[in-house]
Amino acid sequence: MQRAPAIILHAPQLGENIGAAARVMLNFGLTDLRLVKPRDGWPSAPAEAMSAGALAQGTQVSVFETLEEAMTGLTYTIATTARPRGMEKAVFGAPDAVGALKRQAGQSAVLFGGEKSGLPNEAVALCDAILTYPVNPDFSSLNLAQAVGVFCHQWGASAGLEGKFDGTTEGLGAPALREELIGMFEHFEAELERAGYFYPPEKTPVMVTNLRNALVRAQWTQQEVRTFRGAIKALALGRGKARVVREE
Amino acid sequence: MQRAPAIILHAPQLGENIGAAARVMLNFGLTDLRLVKPRDGWPSAPAEAMSAGALAQGTQVSVFETLEEAMTGLTYTIATTARPRGMEKAVFGAPDAVGALKRQAGQSAVLFGGEKSGLPNEAVALCDAILTYPVNPDFSSLNLAQAVGVFCHQWGASAGLEGKFDGTTEGLGAPALREELIGMFEHFEAELERAGYFYPPEKTPVMVTNLRNALVRAQWTQQEVRTFRGAIKALALGRGKARVVREE
Repeated sequence: MQRAPAIILHAPQLGENIGAAARVMLNFGLTDLRLVKPRDGWPSAPAEAMSAGALAQGTQVSVFETLEEAMTGLTYTIATTARPRGMEKAVFGAPDAVGALKRQAGQSAVLFGGEKSGLPNEAVALCDAILTYPVNPDFSSLNLAQAVGVFCHQWGASAGLEGKFDGTTEGLGAPALREELIGMFEHFEAELERAGYFYPPEKTPVMVTNLRNALVRAQWTQQEVRTFRGAIKALALGRGKARVVREE
Repeated sequence: MQRAPAIILHAPQLGENIGAAARVMLNFGLTDLRLVKPRDGWPSAPAEAMSAGALAQGTQVSVFETLEEAMTGLTYTIATTARPRGMEKAVFGAPDAVGALKRQAGQSAVLFGGEKSGLPNEAVALCDAILTYPVNPDFSSLNLAQAVGVFCHQWGASAGLEGKFDGTTEGLGAPALREELIGMFEHFEAELERAGYFYPPEKTPVMVTNLRNALVRAQWTQQEVRTFRGAIKALALGRGKARVVREE
């Protein structure tokens, strides 16, 4: 598996956001967190609390005086910015940024600016490309840890799990055979008929069709068909008020 | 544009997380936030603070006693869960969940459970499908607002902005013509030659090739070529120490 990129926070302010970033990094398998001049120092009790154990369980934090030092050993870096910078750099959304990172052989990193003003142009200039999110232009300022989280999810989604959650139905149930469905329909309709449901009688065919269309769309399993037949049976054998009324 | 889904928080605990969820919703253009039995009540000062203005600027919050009431008017809902439930439901990752939501004609929603234990099975059973994230199995518990944020980014990325941030280089600069590059190379190499850079002389061709390969890869614009030529010129006319040494 591709080595996960480092996350560099450039002049972050709140320990809470650093801790929340560490947590969401570890949620998606990223463990190299580099801090450049954290305003409130390091270590940080609020960061510890917000990390929900990530700092103890796996996220490695290193602290640097300058961005240049934090970038030592990196071969490719992407700067996250909310606004265009007019720089001659590739601008990626999260999926394409992950694609670009996965094509790198060496250690790469994604750089996020501090809460107040984001990344200075000098920091962006040290990066190979820009990552930006499709934000609401009227409310574009993301929380720092959220910005980290969006990237980390994208990384995680591409790291070996892609295609796993593609809308396939979970559970092991075998799909019902058509004859099982039809048997269920007939059972259901017979009981409805006995219960006086189909009224006026000439509407019966269209009512049956509507019911069958609704039920068939659910793509039930064999077990679900059995369950529903059990429900029909229980209703039919139960208080049976409608039947009693009819038989009177 | 497709109407954005509502976000339902089922029994959320901390106002901070509700506010952070409201903020990241509005960041990506979602404005319908529904709370079912928020533990600490509503309105909430911590939520107000963490929303960074979202609650005042656009996110609409409504509060319900039951999930069923919160679901009134919805035609399609997706439950977010970290663990499989063994239920007969489609399981989506974020991109496919957004795809499914965009195919719905009516108002849809995405449901998130509270901080402590996520969604109860009864709540998941009311939903059409499951959304799950590809989390680290050893550290799978996402912060509630982060979970909301990952979905909201995915929604925003698909809502009219997809394909915009595809790695295209921003900036308006016209790419340099080959003859401009070659002129720059020759200028550079002539000054390097005068500076005594190419030593031993028989290595000159390979050194020139290496330099040209490195520079051509940057795909400079015409303006960047002019800027670099200015830099060469400045160096050549500057203190010129190497040249002086050589001319002595």
